[in-house]
Order: sequence, then C-alpha cells, then structure tokens
Amino acid sequence: MAQQRRIQLCTQRPTSTVCVLGTELSLDIQGSAPKDAIAFHVQGTPGVKVYVVHETQSVKLPSSVTRWPLAAGTEVLLTMEAISKDVGDEKVRISYFGEASGVPVGRAMLYLTCVEVSLDADTGRSGSVSRTLVDKTTWTWGPDGHGAILLVNCDRDDPKSRLMGDSGEPQSQPTDNRDTIVCSYEDSIAPEEYKHVLGGEKLAYAVKPSQHQEESIFYVEGLAFPDAGFSGLVAFHVTLLESPEKGLLETPIFTDTVVFRVAPWIMTPNTLAPLEVFVCSVEDNEDFVAAVSMLAEEAKCPVTICPLPENRNDRWIQDEVEFGYVQAPHKMFPVVFDSPRDRGLKDFPVRSILGPDFGYVAQETPENTSSLDSFGNLEVSPPVMVCSKEYPLGRILIGSSFPRFGGRRMAKSVRNFLAAQRVQAPVELFSDWLQVGHVDEFLSFIPAPDRKGFRLLLASPSACYQLLREKQEMGYGEATMFQGLHGVPKPSINEILGNEALRKFNAYTQSCISWNRDILKRELGLAEQDIIDIPQLFQADNQARAMAYFPDMVNMLVLGRHLGIPKPFGPLVDGQCCLEERVRALLQPLGLSCTFINDYFSYHKLDGEVHCGTNVRRKPFAFKWWRMVP
Amino acid sequence: MAQQRRIQLCTQRPTSTVCVLGTELSLDIQGSAPKDAIAFHVQGTPGVKVYVVHETQSVKLPSSVTRWPLAAGTEVLLTMEAISKDVGDEKVRISYFGEASGVPVGRAMLYLTCVEVSLDADTGRSGSVSRTLVDKTTWTWGPDGHGAILLVNCDRDDPKSRLMGDSGEPQSQPTDNRDTIVCSYEDSIAPEEYKHVLGGEKLAYAVKPSQHQEESIFYVEGLAFPDAGFSGLVAFHVTLLESPEKGLLETPIFTDTVVFRVAPWIMTPNTLAPLEVFVCSVEDNEDFVAAVSMLAEEAKCPVTICPLPENRNDRWIQDEVEFGYVQAPHKMFPVVFDSPRDRGLKDFPVRSILGPDFGYVAQETPENTSSLDSFGNLEVSPPVMVCSKEYPLGRILIGSSFPRFGGRRMAKSVRNFLAAQRVQAPVELFSDWLQVGHVDEFLSFIPAPDRKGFRLLLASPSACYQLLREKQEMGYGEATMFQGLHGVPKPSINEILGNEALRKFNAYTQSCISWNRDILKRELGLAEQDIIDIPQLFQADNQARAMAYFPDMVNMLVLGRHLGIPKPFGPLVDGQCCLEERVRALLQPLGLSCTFINDYFSYHKLDGEVHCGTNVRRKPFAFKWWRMVP
Repeated sequence: MAQQRRIQLCTQRPTSTVCVLGTELSLDIQGSAPKDAIAFHVQGTPGVKVYVVHETQSVKLPSSVTRWPLAAGTEVLLTMEAISKDVGDEKVRISYFGEASGVPVGRAMLYLTCVEVSLDADTGRSGSVSRTLVDKTTWTWGPDGHGAILLVNCDRDDPKSRLMGDSGEPQSQPTDNRDTIVCSYEDSIAPEEYKHVLGGEKLAYAVKPSQHQEESIFYVEGLAFPDAGFSGLVAFHVTLLESPEKGLLETPIFTDTVVFRVAPWIMTPNTLAPLEVFVCSVEDNEDFVAAVSMLAEEAKCPVTICPLPENRNDRWIQDEVEFGYVQAPHKMFPVVFDSPRDRGLKDFPVRSILGPDFGYVAQETPENTSSLDSFGNLEVSPPVMVCSKEYPLGRILIGSSFPRFGGRRMAKSVRNFLAAQRVQAPVELFSDWLQVGHVDEFLSFIPAPDRKGFRLLLASPSACYQLLREKQEMGYGEATMFQGLHGVPKPSINEILGNEALRKFNAYTQSCISWNRDILKRELGLAEQDIIDIPQLFQADNQARAMAYFPDMVNMLVLGRHLGIPKPFGPLVDGQCCLEERVRALLQPLGLSCTFINDYFSYHKLDGEVHCGTNVRRKPFAFKWWRMVP
Repeated sequence: MAQQRRIQLCTQRPTSTVCVLGTELSLDIQGSAPKDAIAFHVQGTPGVKVYVVHETQSVKLPSSVTRWPLAAGTEVLLTMEAISKDVGDEKVRISYFGEASGVPVGRAMLYLTCVEVSLDADTGRSGSVSRTLVDKTTWTWGPDGHGAILLVNCDRDDPKSRLMGDSGEPQSQPTDNRDTIVCSYEDSIAPEEYKHVLGGEKLAYAVKPSQHQEESIFYVEGLAFPDAGFSGLVAFHVTLLESPEKGLLETPIFTDTVVFRVAPWIMTPNTLAPLEVFVCSVEDNEDFVAAVSMLAEEAKCPVTICPLPENRNDRWIQDEVEFGYVQAPHKMFPVVFDSPRDRGLKDFPVRSILGPDFGYVAQETPENTSSLDSFGNLEVSPPVMVCSKEYPLGRILIGSSFPRFGGRRMAKSVRNFLAAQRVQAPVELFSDWLQVGHVDEFLSFIPAPDRKGFRLLLASPSACYQLLREKQEMGYGEATMFQGLHGVPKPSINEILGNEALRKFNAYTQSCISWNRDILKRELGLAEQDIIDIPQLFQADNQARAMAYFPDMVNMLVLGRHLGIPKPFGPLVDGQCCLEERVRALLQPLGLSCTFINDYFSYHKLDGEVHCGTNVRRKPFAFKWWRMVP
C-alpha cells in the first residue's frame, strides 16, 4: 500500500506541495469548501493522476462525471509518475459549486512538485543494492524472505592499526567496529574516502541534495552481534522535511525506512571440510605436533602451529577459541569466538588470528568462569531435522550441570550470545559429571556416506565392558593395557573386569552418557542407528567426577574422512590393540581412515586429548542462514 | 512423542530401574549380548508393554515371532501403564541364543518400578491446574494456543506491610514481588502457611516424596514484567534423580518442564467502560472538581478525589499514572503504571493506589526525563485491524520527536517496557512540535455505535479556520472569543482571520497533525470516515512550539457516552458558542453527550486541560490477551 499524505487546501490562496514518487496525496476537499458548496469539480495537468473515491468506488479522472457531491465519504487522491523538471510544474484545480449550478462559488489551486526519495539496500539479498516494492520495514526469514543483511565489522583490515586503546592500555577487541572509521569495503579503498555520518552520538545526518546529486551512497557497518538485549534488527530512516516559513520548525513530508538484520555468528560442524588445522607447539609435544601435521597433510589441509611464545605453554587451543563465520549476500568471512577462559593462549586470538577479513568476537563474563566456559564444551551438530523442524545449520551443544542441582554452568553471557544468534538453537547437555566437564569428552560427530550424512559417536563404558568380557571369554584375560608406556601400571583385562569400584563408577558414567544420548536423540531427531558407541572407560577423581581411564577416543580430530584418534593403549590381543581394532571395525565401513595418535603423556595425563589440543577452521555451509526459519 | 530413556542391561547380574509413567524405556539389547549370541527372546510380566522394533516395524509382544535377530536396527521398547505397588514388582527377561538353538547362551533380567512424576500447571488456560498431553515446554499464542500464565505479584495484599526497605529507606516499589513471602493466593491465607523454596539465590529445591505424599502444590509469583532483556517466559523443571551407589553422584532419570509466560501489562482505551474517575483537589479548582464529579455521576461512575496533602498541588494526574491491568485465566487485577515524571503526585500511586489486588509498576529511567515522559503522552487505541492483522487490544500510541532530528523522546526504558508487553504494539507519533508534547493534545478516541465502534478525534486548525471563515461570511466577523473570562483579551473572528502570523503557524501545526493523521490511518487501518476533525487553534511559544490558543477540545474526558470537553470560549453567534455548537453537531449524532467544562484558569492557562487533569480506571477487555497472535 502506498504511503498516503493528507493535504489541506485553501480557496484564499494557492497551495504548493511536494509529492514523493510512489506515494499518494489525499486532498482535504471538505476542509477548504466554501460554506454554500455542495459539489466540486477536480481537474489536473497531464502529469497528475487524479482519482475520486465516492461511495467506496475509485474513479479515475477524467470521467463522464464532472461534478461530485461534497459527501463525507468522498475523497480525492493524487499520484504522480515522473519527477518534476521544475518546481510546481504540475497542478490540480478544485472548483466548488453551490445549489445554483454554473459559476463556481470558490476555487482551490494546488501546485505540485514530484521528487524521488528512497532509502535502498540489498533487501532482495542478491548481493547488490536495488529498488524494491517489497516492504522494507520488515525483515523475514526463509527461502522467500526479504530484508537487508549487515555484517559486524569485527575484522581488522589495517594490520598496522594500533592494538593500544586511547588510554594506552592494550585494547581487548581492537576490531574495526570499535572505531568510527569505515576501514574499507572491498579492502582496497583508503579510509580517508569515508566520512562518519551516523552512529554513536550521531543519531541524524542531514542530506542536502543539489539538483545534480541524484544519489548518496552510505556504507554501513554492524557494531555488535545479536545478544540478549539486541535482536539484531537495525532500522534506518530517511525523512524529507519541508522548509517552513521563517521562524517555524521543519515539518516531515515523507519517511522511508529500511531494516537490516545483523548476520549471526555461525559455527561449523565436523562434517564440513577443514580449511586450516591449529595446534600448539609446547615444550614436550614434538611428536604430537608431527602426528597432527602428518594427518593434516593426508587430509590436504594446511596446519598453523602456534609457537611457544604465543601460547605460553598452553596447549589447549580447542578450549581457547571456536572458529565460525559471518555471511551476507555480498560477503563472508571467518570469525573467531574467543572464550572467557584466559590462560596462556589469552592473547593469541587477537594477536595472531584477528586480521583482514578474519573477525573476532568475545563476550564479557563478569562471573567467575569455570572449566565449563572453555570451548571444548561448545560443539555443533551437523544439519538435522527434528520431527518436521529443520536445523539446516545444525544445533549448538553445550555442557551444563542441568538437570542436577547447583554445579558448574557455562557463563550466562556466552549462553545468551549463542541463543541470540538464533540459527543454531543451542541444546544444553549434562557434562558436569566430568572433572573437566566438556561435551567433547563424551561425544563427537563424524561424516558418513549414508543416512543423515553423519554419525554421532558416544563414549560407551558399557560397550567397553562388553568388549573386554568378550576378550576374556576368548581367553585373553591376562592381556594388559598401556604396553610401551614407561612408568604406567599395566592392568590386565581380568583385573579391570574384577575391579568392582571401577565397574560401579562406569555404570554411573554410562547412565550420565545415556541421559545425554536420550536428549541428543530427542533434540537432534536421531535414531539408534545414527549413534555409534565407542568403547571407553572412566575413573573417578577424589570428588567422584569422571576422568578418562585410558585416552578418550571420542575426543578426536575430524578432517574430512581422516580421523586423528587418541591412541587408547588397550589390551594387546594377538599383537593388536583390541580397542583400536574395534574402533576401526566400527568406523572403517563408513569410509573413514583411523589414525591413532599417541597423546598419553603430552595431553591425556594433563586431562585432555587430541581434540582438546587442536582446532579447525572449516568451510562455511553452502546453505545461507537467512533461508532458514528459526 | 514420549520421552525415551536408554537402559543398559547385563547378563552377569539383574538390573533395576524406574520407569516414569508416560515415558518409554529403550533396552540396549546389543550392549549386553554374549559374544556368540545371534538372536534374542524377550518376555515381560503383564504390567509391562513390550515392543520389538525390527526393520522399522514395531511389533507388540507377545507375537508369533519368538526369536528376534540381534541386528543393528533391532530395538526393544517398554512402557508401563500403572504405578507399581512395590519396588521392582514388574520384570522383563531377555534370553540370548547362539547359532545352536535350544538353551540360551545368556540371560539379562530387568526389574521395573513404575512411578508417576509430572509438573503440572494450567497449561490449558482454564483457570485450574490439570494434566495435559500438550507440549508443556512450549508456549503458544492464539485461540488454539497453550501454555501456563503467571501474574506479576505487583499488588500489596497486606496493607500493614512496611513501606520501608531493609535499609530503613522508603521502598520505591513495596510490592509483594519484592519479598520472598507469598502473601496470599486468594487473599485469605496467612503467609505463614507458605515456605519460600525457589527464587533469588534458591535455584533448586529437593522434593523428598514419601509413600503417602502423592502431590506437592507450589504457588508461583511473577517477579518482573516482560522487558527488553526478558521475554516473559519462565521455565520450571522437575528432575527425578537416582540415588546412586555410595560415594557416587546422583544421576538424572527423568525431567519434566513447564513454561509460563508472565502476563503483560495491558492498557485500556476510552471505549471501555469507566470504573473509577480520578481528579486532584488543589487550591483553585473547586469548580472543576465539581464539574468532573457531576459528569461522573451522570456516567454512574465513582470519583476518587486525590486531596491536596497527597497531590502537593500537582493537578496533572493523567501525567503521573496510567491505569491498566493484568490477567491470567484464574485471576485479574488492575495495575497502575507510575510514570518517570515525579512531581507533586510522586508518592500518590504507591501510597494511595497500590494495595490488595491493585498492582503497581514503574520503570527506572536513568536518563533525564522530559515532558514527553508524562503519561498524557501515552494513550491506546480501541481494537483495530490493519490489513489482515488484528490488534484486538488496540495499539499503544506515544509521542516522539521522530522523524525530526534530535528533540525530545520518551525514555528508552519506558518504550522498551511497552513494546515488550507485545499485545498492544506501540506506534510512535510526532508530538515534539507541541510545547508540552503529549499525544492527548491533538487526539482522542470516542465510542461510536457504527463502523469500527469508535471515532478518532483530531485537533484541526484547518477545520477551525473553515468554521471561522464561514461565520465571517455569515456576518459574525465581530463576534469575539473568551466572553466572560476576566482579564483575557477578546479577539474577534475578523481579528483572528486577519492575523497572518497565526494563520501561518496554524498551517504548520496542521501539517504536523496531518503527518500524524497519515501514520494513524496506516498503523490503525483507519479510513477518513473514522476520523472527526475538531476545530482547534494553536499559538507559538517563543521557541515556535505549539500551545492551544483556546482550551484544547480533543483533550477530553470520555466516560462511556458522556464527554467532558474543555469549554472553548469561542465566538458567540446568536448567543451560542460556535465552537461548542460545531462539536455538538459532530458528536451528538453518535449518541454522545457533550458537557463543556470550564478549565480556563485552573488548567488551560497552566498548559493542560480536562484530560490532563483527570484519569480513569476502566473495565478490562472481554478479550483475553493470550488468544491474540502478536
């Protein structure tokens, strides 16, 4: 529906006004009628389309009717279809008639100037700005949705830009959205070309059009991601104001509005192709770095090794950051989410990852952080469908103490941030039963050629007991674990199966994992056949919290079909580790290649494994987030 | 879909577990199978319903098939339909068979105890708690919606409860939601009967069921209204935890969740029946109070006169508060919204309105407040339909400086609060052109028997000029205004029409009102016939802001069909005020009775009128807010 503007007329003197192209003027015929008038005639120059609405019928003029009654329901509407060449170059005349026909009892003249005012953006999501007839004031999701998209300018295009804030302190987030400089649109235009006109204290900007200026181009940068207090929608308005009589204030004539949505931060599941593997080089992990590098080479994926000076002997790069991306129709770039866990790797994301077209985001966490705030506790599923509800970008998984009383929980600000992105609706799992408490200690996703395109791997004490009993029955009860590991006790299958405390504790950990299995089946719409149980045992710490009894195999690195799995050092049966053998038997039929990486002393004994010690930047989804309905 | 829980079995020893009524157990048949097993038989006692899911078919047992292959896709599901009388009084036995049929190669026993755990609320919105099969974890709007509703306990049931906070300072909002006492459900039960178990620091409460305790009843009070950072949804969970082996932590077995929505604060338009009229008695307004009281008597509506000690000579009771209400299926009560404007009437809402079953709400406004924060600038339309979108509770109207640069605007916290209620989607109008800047200076709604059930009245300088010109043409040019008002200049119609500065200023105010007319037509779906132009003139203050030139007639008190209109003191034509005559001619045909109240010295000269000096508590809508779709 076209915007409509009411115009008062006057029989004493002519009225002049502006008509904005695409809008409608409604003339106040009654308001200017002389007291004896009972009918009117209306006539316009050729550039004005005139309609009389009478008794709910709309009649385009000229028509056979020449005089219209001055009835309460009678309206005169005008539109114009071309911009005026001169001020007031089109006009409309209203003639009023009394009882006695013939000479008009009064006349009202309206001089019209047609101008074009429009605020345009890429509302069609084509990648370029265009005029549109769709409603620009609303933003809709889905394949037929419309509405413009804004990226948070959270990268740092000028690598020379200062890392220090105005106060001389290091800036915690020295990203491009923190200043008023628009630092390049195509990463090639010098910032000097742009002037900051809106944002911060500047809530309005006057555009003074000249006759030659047909178009003003504004570049827009997002300053913040959607969050608990910010839906992500940003509205811009342009208002045409009429210069009034001297001494009076300007009056609005026309407003156009365009609504943008700030693009969400999106996580990438294991099923997406790896683009870059990260691993830390610390004092004692040369072999591990070599093994990861070799695996990455097989997967044809480059490796970035974070050196000791940058990691300050902190090897847990999975916990420090999560790689994701932002996308608009015109541009896409990776964005690293820096966790509130700030140990040795604290400065690495800002100093070494943030850069041109590589964004950065973090959340302030006023509360005391716990181990559950590390991003080993933040994973995302592949795309799933739950009943008829589609999650084409998967669902975020975080570990929590829920449904138990108290306990540890991820910081509220991080949970709010993740939920506010809306496109990967988070699921809270129960991970507080673990000493470290991360979801990657009991689950992983791997690509599969069939079914939903993936399998969920779950650590399974029950599958491990079944395997060990099977081997015992086959006569391998004396086979021992941890062969070749210096100084590590070597329990036999018989000893493990005879350890009643260990059995009870693993029945308990199994029930915790089963609880999560039930949630995952429900919230991700999985069937039993979508889940693979990976044999694993846990042991209790002194607070009855679970730690992996042998290297935790689900805590793996997934690079396409190449899996880097913590080497379990299971009992040797016929010279073969029966745990490795079982895992190969489960995964190789899916076309996956299993590489067991020795992380025993360098990671496992420090309460982490291969996944905790690596990180992967992955290819974004082919699916565009705005085409989903959250 | 029933909640499902995965159960591990064991051939070494029997397994015991609890089955929650209405849920499903999924048995891990493969996980406990001896290594040579290739098939199984399953059998349950009569209280257990057993299903085998094989090749995607679900077969209820007993069936003609007695042995099932141990294939990957084969599942065994159990349900129970009655609560157990004893622990483990039902059981299921799995027998495993190898290649050689006959004797089982292993057996797994499962002892089952069926219990009932359910968190119930009035999800059906019937006014009482009931069991339901609908999804309690979601809350949906509309006539077919479901989900429980919570009221903010913002009244003060104990009139003796202290107005002082713990610090000895007066409490700004001493409402029942500010303490941990549940002060009556039916306003008849002593608070001692209740124990505070959840809320504030208390995030969990352990229910220890005995064999005799079949039901625990919890009362819930809302603590805060929906707001920018709070959607209004509150989730409660009950979790059944299994007491584990000594030294281990409890494990969750079942969780039930119920989601409540906090009821929004709802405004009442002029078209709703008046229940109570408020007016302030100050030093110089005896006649005004008498006139308002007489009008209220005609409308059969009680009057509450706020005495001088309580209003401290502040007569603008419209500006201090807005009356609304909250509603749940089981209860409804009025709630006064206290504006950030804190003048003489500052303490009146808390001291004299807040009470048993009369709630109170306010918003903190850290910014400097302006005149636009007064609630004369907060109105609500009657129910409207815009294109096909229904607003069965109308839309809130607030005045703003938009679309002009800068200027005054209602405090963000109040705007956020109003929008967050969702059921009366606010529309921002342009009111900053007025010196006082309130929407009630240029608009009002009155009931009407036809069309949409109401008319929008708009102040109209153009209609006033038309009327005065008509009277001039009829020979009454020398008729003067303000007859009978001592010390007030008495301009004639000729003088007014000859005042070029006044004409230009009123052309400007007309364009500001027309701008709002266009917005109102668009946002409320109004036609020209839904609008009545009420003759009115404005004059400029020294900043070119508008003030009513004569008492502002749209600023009226609407009590059903009885209107209390500021007496305009227009030019006397044949002994009749031509302005009053015109307004009667416009409104009486709608069945309305016009009473013109002299507020000239007591209100008009102090920049307000009848509406500003009164307030009305109205009957709530018959329409229940949860039946709409916002």
